[in-house]
Amino acid sequence: MSNRMNGQWRLKSRPIGMVKESDFEYVEEPVPELGDNEFLIRNLYFAFEPAMRGWLNDVKSYVPPVEIGEVMRAGTVGQVVESNNPDFSPGDFVQGQLGWQEYGINDGKPSMMGAVSKIPEGIPPYLVLSALGGTGLTAYFGLLDVGKPKEGDVIVVSGAAGATGSVAGQIARINGASKVVGIAGGPEKCAWLTDELGFDAAIDYKSEDVTARLAEECPKGINVFFDNVGGDILDSALLNMAQNGRIVLCGGISSYNEQELPSGPRNYMQLVIRRCTMEGFIVIDYLHKAADAIKVLSEWIESGELKHGEDIQEGIENTPKTFLRLFQGKNKGKQLLKIAEPPL
Amino acid sequence: MSNRMNGQWRLKSRPIGMVKESDFEYVEEPVPELGDNEFLIRNLYFAFEPAMRGWLNDVKSYVPPVEIGEVMRAGTVGQVVESNNPDFSPGDFVQGQLGWQEYGINDGKPSMMGAVSKIPEGIPPYLVLSALGGTGLTAYFGLLDVGKPKEGDVIVVSGAAGATGSVAGQIARINGASKVVGIAGGPEKCAWLTDELGFDAAIDYKSEDVTARLAEECPKGINVFFDNVGGDILDSALLNMAQNGRIVLCGGISSYNEQELPSGPRNYMQLVIRRCTMEGFIVIDYLHKAADAIKVLSEWIESGELKHGEDIQEGIENTPKTFLRLFQGKNKGKQLLKIAEPPL
Repeated sequence: MSNRMNGQWRLKSRPIGMVKESDFEYVEEPVPELGDNEFLIRNLYFAFEPAMRGWLNDVKSYVPPVEIGEVMRAGTVGQVVESNNPDFSPGDFVQGQLGWQEYGINDGKPSMMGAVSKIPEGIPPYLVLSALGGTGLTAYFGLLDVGKPKEGDVIVVSGAAGATGSVAGQIARINGASKVVGIAGGPEKCAWLTDELGFDAAIDYKSEDVTARLAEECPKGINVFFDNVGGDILDSALLNMAQNGRIVLCGGISSYNEQELPSGPRNYMQLVIRRCTMEGFIVIDYLHKAADAIKVLSEWIESGELKHGEDIQEGIENTPKTFLRLFQGKNKGKQLLKIAEPPL
Repeated sequence: MSNRMNGQWRLKSRPIGMVKESDFEYVEEPVPELGDNEFLIRNLYFAFEPAMRGWLNDVKSYVPPVEIGEVMRAGTVGQVVESNNPDFSPGDFVQGQLGWQEYGINDGKPSMMGAVSKIPEGIPPYLVLSALGGTGLTAYFGLLDVGKPKEGDVIVVSGAAGATGSVAGQIARINGASKVVGIAGGPEKCAWLTDELGFDAAIDYKSEDVTARLAEECPKGINVFFDNVGGDILDSALLNMAQNGRIVLCGGISSYNEQELPSGPRNYMQLVIRRCTMEGFIVIDYLHKAADAIKVLSEWIESGELKHGEDIQEGIENTPKTFLRLFQGKNKGKQLLKIAEPPL
């Protein structure tokens, strides 16, 4: 046992309805000694995403739920500080799913959520939690492989100022959409979409009639709707789809904290009338193609075509609070928490 | 003006909620003289389908609504009794969309709902309103082109004792499904599916827990769900889809007579978790491929592989009452009304 202490946020109780800070508890335990092939990582950043809310429910899903008393599962970036593994040396920056804790131990073997891997040099390490990680890949495969946009399509993204939405909308533009419209909450986010990220228009769902504004911005209908939100916004999009349009179901943040499953999309029969497709996907099915996608995303970032945005909070004490920002609509771009400076 | 009188059922008022017999009125008017190229058809059968309920609402859809005072639009089979058109002779059996009236006049040119055309010899003429018409084509293209079933798939059909469902389930079997399950209302319909149409199993939604029974019949999940019903049955199917399953949205009869749009499918986020597709279609988009499909359907019927079922009521005075049978779940197979014997 080393004399390092490891601060951890563990799941204390399953949230009912809106997740609360008190659903997690902070504990410290000594960092164990490393075994054969193991290496010790000091985490620097935690990544937050809406799907994590689903992992807190005791239901069968695409990954098992986080158990009560378990360290909260989350994407992390850190630096190797000790190593018994020939492939990982102290000083290496690595990404993984080490969860909400200061230190993680790993042996480099693949696990359910992917393997711990080294971060390429020359980029800010946290970028692999954002546009060059699961977020960027979700936007990339969701828009291109599921949405299958054609040159000249009109593309609408909900949750457009969020991590995935902001990247998806920019990929749509780069890929040749004739118009990209983002739906987001509040004038600041909307201005960010049009002024900095190159969206053609933004609709503020908090102050505008989304159905009417979509009809105005997309008079010939929406060819691809990339949905992160669900609820009324999905229903508004259904009323504005073009014939043979595609709805990409990436997420449905509007319902993740509901105690009872809310009403589904009332207007779903528009899928028949307008001959549309609604398709769900999970990015882990595309990981075998991730390397090529990361290469493309990196080039777009380097050339300045693709802008990445992060909302970086600080301090491990603020972990649950930072998670809640997602559901309060506070984050612009990827929600991250910086818990330490590079130690080496 | 001939001295023939034409009995017609016209739309009297737009139904609010459940359609009523009193939403239509019976009137008689003289049959006009034929113009150049026109021919007079005496209708023998009317066809009824759930989608007709949608045509009564004053909303934009894939076809314009039926106007108040207009003869109710419907598929018909009849016989030519007079003709100024070289392509149509008295005695010819023809199909068309001549609506709820004893006589129709046509010039053989295509219209919004397709052209009047001659019925091939050697089959009961009404078959073109059922398995060899729009109904059979809807089942054929919906299951094969939209559902894209693979050899060995588990396929579930709702509204399975209805006109389209009963054909779709049989096509699934012929096409190589490992199991075909039908959902229908009542023991008589369920027995018809398994004993006469070759479904592997039938679930009676009126007396059984559909979610639990689907789990039992489809332990590895549903690969293709062909939905004619919507509502709770669609939600039950969503909870039982296999990964990468396809939901074919053909109709949603459970909601057609609702005054307010009911809640949509609450479980639609299962499309994400299970990576499924939900796709709507309208058969008129496939009419360019209809000839080939009709040929295949005819061969299946001739070989006895595909059984067609019709529920044939009689008497033009019973027209609205027969339409209502669809929404009362009374019909087994295609709902038809015979209004006359072949006159020639």
